[in-house]
Amino acid sequence: MRFLLPALVASLALSTVAFAAEPADTAAALRDKARGDGTAWTILEDLTTEIGPRPVGSPAMTRAKDWAVETLTAYGFTNIKVEAFAKPTWHRGAESASIIAPYPLKLSIIGLGGSVPTPAKGVEGEVVIFRTLAELEAVPDGSLSGKIAVVTTPMVRTQSGEGYGAVGAVRRTGPSIAGRKGAIAYLTRSVSTSDSRLAHTGIMRYADGAPQIPAAALGIPDAEQLERLAARGPVRVKLNMASTVDSGSVAWNISGDIVGSERPEQIIVVGGHLDSWDVGTGAIDDASGIAITTAAGKLIGDLPRHPKRTIRVVMWGSEETGGSSEAYAAARKDEMPNLVVAGESDFGAGRIYALQLPERAMTSPALAPLPGLMAPLKVIVSRDPARGGGADTEGLEKAGVPAFSLRQDGTRYFDLHHSEDDTLDKVDPDDLQQNVAAWVALLYMIADSDIDSRALKDAK
Amino acid sequence: MRFLLPALVASLALSTVAFAAEPADTAAALRDKARGDGTAWTILEDLTTEIGPRPVGSPAMTRAKDWAVETLTAYGFTNIKVEAFAKPTWHRGAESASIIAPYPLKLSIIGLGGSVPTPAKGVEGEVVIFRTLAELEAVPDGSLSGKIAVVTTPMVRTQSGEGYGAVGAVRRTGPSIAGRKGAIAYLTRSVSTSDSRLAHTGIMRYADGAPQIPAAALGIPDAEQLERLAARGPVRVKLNMASTVDSGSVAWNISGDIVGSERPEQIIVVGGHLDSWDVGTGAIDDASGIAITTAAGKLIGDLPRHPKRTIRVVMWGSEETGGSSEAYAAARKDEMPNLVVAGESDFGAGRIYALQLPERAMTSPALAPLPGLMAPLKVIVSRDPARGGGADTEGLEKAGVPAFSLRQDGTRYFDLHHSEDDTLDKVDPDDLQQNVAAWVALLYMIADSDIDSRALKDAK
Repeated sequence: MRFLLPALVASLALSTVAFAAEPADTAAALRDKARGDGTAWTILEDLTTEIGPRPVGSPAMTRAKDWAVETLTAYGFTNIKVEAFAKPTWHRGAESASIIAPYPLKLSIIGLGGSVPTPAKGVEGEVVIFRTLAELEAVPDGSLSGKIAVVTTPMVRTQSGEGYGAVGAVRRTGPSIAGRKGAIAYLTRSVSTSDSRLAHTGIMRYADGAPQIPAAALGIPDAEQLERLAARGPVRVKLNMASTVDSGSVAWNISGDIVGSERPEQIIVVGGHLDSWDVGTGAIDDASGIAITTAAGKLIGDLPRHPKRTIRVVMWGSEETGGSSEAYAAARKDEMPNLVVAGESDFGAGRIYALQLPERAMTSPALAPLPGLMAPLKVIVSRDPARGGGADTEGLEKAGVPAFSLRQDGTRYFDLHHSEDDTLDKVDPDDLQQNVAAWVALLYMIADSDIDSRALKDAK
Repeated sequence: MRFLLPALVASLALSTVAFAAEPADTAAALRDKARGDGTAWTILEDLTTEIGPRPVGSPAMTRAKDWAVETLTAYGFTNIKVEAFAKPTWHRGAESASIIAPYPLKLSIIGLGGSVPTPAKGVEGEVVIFRTLAELEAVPDGSLSGKIAVVTTPMVRTQSGEGYGAVGAVRRTGPSIAGRKGAIAYLTRSVSTSDSRLAHTGIMRYADGAPQIPAAALGIPDAEQLERLAARGPVRVKLNMASTVDSGSVAWNISGDIVGSERPEQIIVVGGHLDSWDVGTGAIDDASGIAITTAAGKLIGDLPRHPKRTIRVVMWGSEETGGSSEAYAAARKDEMPNLVVAGESDFGAGRIYALQLPERAMTSPALAPLPGLMAPLKVIVSRDPARGGGADTEGLEKAGVPAFSLRQDGTRYFDLHHSEDDTLDKVDPDDLQQNVAAWVALLYMIADSDIDSRALKDAK
């Protein structure tokens, strides 16, 4: 009676989608339980406190791998797998930069991941300021000989995070362009919305054939100080950067399953990435994603009856410098036809405001309760389809697995991202719970449905 | 006719305070001019860009002195004086701290001004966390032998800044208390409302007879990470700090006058402090105060007729580690009876929300127009009297000079104060102009009045 009554009420209330009433009830109960559940916070606090920053190839990452297995085990996941893959790694050494003239002033910088080091004695030259990458591209090849190129494009704050894509090339491809122009080093204003002196790192890659010059990001106020000084007269800067590359290192994708009760071979793959940059403690990037998806899986695993399909939480092992997506897709090639859908939580812990489904799932009757399930969380079901799950689901998406996206409010994300400021105190526990609530409701609905794993039409 | 008409209109409109109508008109015109005037921003940008950080005893401070003379001259001040005084100075060296166990993690710290250095090889010990200074004081003397004492009291964000006073002792006197308990080093959570890794420095002084142990401030997230780790088990930290003391250095108070047209010997002393900490560029602390008061003086100096009394802008030379207040009062001892009132701008560039007058000036008919003059700036004239002008006017106040206070919104001030984040970009140009507008209106009203220099009753 205790179990039948809510289902009866729901089936009356939702008579047009009566076949889905029972999953929606369970999803609603899971959602509401998640609002008061501390699992995600515990995971987040443990990972950031007990492991700290965990770049690939570091001793901390080895400890993180063990932590991941223990955590998945403790929260009731089964079929736990640790899958190693080769991953050459870049390790930061000592870094410093100073204005030499018109007067000595220490600059706040951070080397970009993948940058070559400077010679031990550093490099020194006059800076040339470019407001945009287009301005840098416009000068003749070789014209920056002996100079340090500085690009100062600001990043625009947006809720969606699209300001990042608009300016990301200054970090990723700027060094190669500057090298071709003859520059001896490259500095970019940090790709960040912050106004902190703390600079923001991130990956860069040299274009084939481009001169490999050292590249670093400036704190926002440092970039602006250079602009003002350079407007007044010549400015000389000295840059020292050390780094090493380990071509023999290994990373791991770690996963655990909440095994489905009826069609366990059909799998929903979700997760976050376990690796982080070496600065901060990787709280928003991406211990939060680990915590949100693991907690959602755990809450579903605690149910007396698991949903029909399997929910797999993957802790991807090398997102920041790439590799885990391809490695996972390659290792699980044979499973591809059984993957229902994929999703990654990798945008901090800001509140979710929109769910985007794969296009062909948007009209599925089985998912018709989603707007009602999401409304109390102040999450809309978007009229736009998902444009991808996350960096770590790209390999699956290329193999044809559809992805969904639970879009988080990223207004503050790029104040913190890839910097020393990515620490636990930046996460709001209520926001974290709201994330878990949206994830758990969505995951349950898909896992207990019959929608086709690939076409995402309703089966049968 | 051009000059008489406004005065006539004003005297009709303000018939109850008709004797003050003409100064109030001029004050209102100055106020409105200041709202669109770029002088303060130019001064602020020049000082922070061309000089940068300027701790006492540094080459930058020598450049700042020359800049000050040039600036006061350029803006029409006369009677410019550079008064040297002896000021032993403390100079920061290399500083670092790391967690050693349970795992290696770099901590973000900054040495407190006046701290002794560590031995070259550093100090290392287990941390003991105290939530408050009272908890530290409660343990027996000698009980922290070999340990590093850590005090983690958070600072409360307030508009008035009173959160600073409530917790400041953790920085100023904590090291001596910890030394008495036997600690080998002292760490405090930064006295700041920020959540940045960037730590906040400030002066400390060892109590007579207390063991002198090295003392530093932790970034806020670092302090919280230590709390969480220490709750899980023993935590060992290593601290390295270098510093030197120069007992022979010199500082300067620099002043310039807008000479009064009728009673030039009666002087209103205002200003900000030219020195800053060695981190950041001292934009809010206190290039803003220099800019606000200099711009206010300049606007008054530009008038075709100066007010009756002299307005003196002082750029005090050693506020952060003390000394300029006493030096100025001592050097100008003979002038004391002629000082009408004093005020300092030393709380950043947040908007002014309240004017506090010296108690005996609060009912002066000559100042009756002030509420009306301040209202368009959204500044109230407080019903509470001023409790002091600023750290640099204390010497004058002790000698009997009354002080006023134009209270600024300090809600964000302690996010930035004494840290690398104290940079130009943190100042809002509109807020800076609002400050100048309030200062210029107030200064003109006092300078063109007859209120008694000491009793601040209306003279005659």
